[in-house]
Amino acid sequence: MVLINGLLDDKITITDRGLHYGDGLFETMLYRAQTIEFLEAHLARLIDGARRLNIEFVQQKQLRDELTRICQHLAEDDAIIKVIITRGSGGRGYLAMSGIEPSRIISTHALPDYPSANSNTGVKLRFCNHTLSENAKLAGIKHLNRLDQVIARSEWHDPSIAEGLMLDSSGNVIEGTMSNIFTVKSGQILTPKLDKSGVAGVMRGQIIQFSLGLNIPVLETSINVDDLMSSEEVFICNSIIGIWPVLNIGNMTYSIGHTTQCLQSVLDRLRK
Amino acid sequence: MVLINGLLDDKITITDRGLHYGDGLFETMLYRAQTIEFLEAHLARLIDGARRLNIEFVQQKQLRDELTRICQHLAEDDAIIKVIITRGSGGRGYLAMSGIEPSRIISTHALPDYPSANSNTGVKLRFCNHTLSENAKLAGIKHLNRLDQVIARSEWHDPSIAEGLMLDSSGNVIEGTMSNIFTVKSGQILTPKLDKSGVAGVMRGQIIQFSLGLNIPVLETSINVDDLMSSEEVFICNSIIGIWPVLNIGNMTYSIGHTTQCLQSVLDRLRK
Repeated sequence: MVLINGLLDDKITITDRGLHYGDGLFETMLYRAQTIEFLEAHLARLIDGARRLNIEFVQQKQLRDELTRICQHLAEDDAIIKVIITRGSGGRGYLAMSGIEPSRIISTHALPDYPSANSNTGVKLRFCNHTLSENAKLAGIKHLNRLDQVIARSEWHDPSIAEGLMLDSSGNVIEGTMSNIFTVKSGQILTPKLDKSGVAGVMRGQIIQFSLGLNIPVLETSINVDDLMSSEEVFICNSIIGIWPVLNIGNMTYSIGHTTQCLQSVLDRLRK
Repeated sequence: MVLINGLLDDKITITDRGLHYGDGLFETMLYRAQTIEFLEAHLARLIDGARRLNIEFVQQKQLRDELTRICQHLAEDDAIIKVIITRGSGGRGYLAMSGIEPSRIISTHALPDYPSANSNTGVKLRFCNHTLSENAKLAGIKHLNRLDQVIARSEWHDPSIAEGLMLDSSGNVIEGTMSNIFTVKSGQILTPKLDKSGVAGVMRGQIIQFSLGLNIPVLETSINVDDLMSSEEVFICNSIIGIWPVLNIGNMTYSIGHTTQCLQSVLDRLRK
């Protein structure tokens, strides 16, 4: 099911700036137990992204109403709900007309068939060759300029590799193609700072909050491959997969540690 | 008039990867004197961009046929013809399905009403605050990830400023939001090297060829603001505007020089 600006449709005008320039934002949300998980956090990030890109996204009530409508029509127990907000349609070249109204595109999708072992016994990662583009002004935003992720994700087809890690041009580990990464070392949780590249995931934000609630210090910092190597635990996360413990990254091996399991159980309890 | 994969339509399926990820390329071409100017150079760049992004764009004959059809229906003497090629429709997340067929979107647009003085008496530029994202793997490609240009172009609304110059994070001048830049100094033509960011414009390529044909050496190099300040002539170019001499960039002033005029007359002769 797809709603475009509140109307059932599966096509969008080719003048939309989302198509021409990737001029917009998106959210990928988990629907389960008849609710959208972390909806408020997703909407807050969307609104913050719109503010940073100067997209006048004032149709928040409409979006909420449309999300309610689309959930009422979902036959499945669980699904992905994707929201795309673009700056809107038209404008001569890069300059958008003033007063342009953003487009709202809401679509539902079946959950990917990830093996349940990914959560329970952990996953294998690889390093991607493609590095992330860097720009402080765009860092953290879940915008529609995603060629970096497309190129990086095209590097492997081995289904035993669950995710690829992306570095910046200085060799800092930033994120997975579709996930954020955390490490555990000496009783502290670390995650890459996203001041020059990367997407500040909603689940990443939740995990930081869970950790602080458990009185485990969290540090957003630079993490390079040596830091990964000397980490006691590694896990990746996003809004759909939740938390996957990491067993291997290339030749580096980890075991599932107490902190990762503890955060998984906080998330599991929230989901019950 | 819009042709999508050869059919008259003005809407595209929302599953197209151009919308979701900016996963594609575009060309903006000038139609005049019943022909598409520098068509072969545009197609060559499109094909090279597809190769670099690993988009299996094998529908080149179809695209040529569709361009011919669309030109036959053009009532105007001159127009812009825009071609968008996306990787195609669908795929689970960032990973595109193998065998996916690229989408071809061809649209015609009225020429912008740029003052003819821009070519004759020159234009005024500004420096944009927004810097370009850097990534050697994407540099030079005219792909659909254009948030940098959108943000930079939103910085000014003064119609007397014809273009904004964009720098990289190291302070190198790279390009205008919609144009490439050239400078002239000591009998040599210089233009920014585009190894980390920027779009290698078709008109930029033509001007390099014109210059070599005129036995004027051309250097692709790093150009910073000091280098701009000490330049004798500055001009910008793209496929639509041709060559615009630059009179002012912020506080720096230039006069229209012999080399710029010489290159303009080469282009004018080609256009006759």
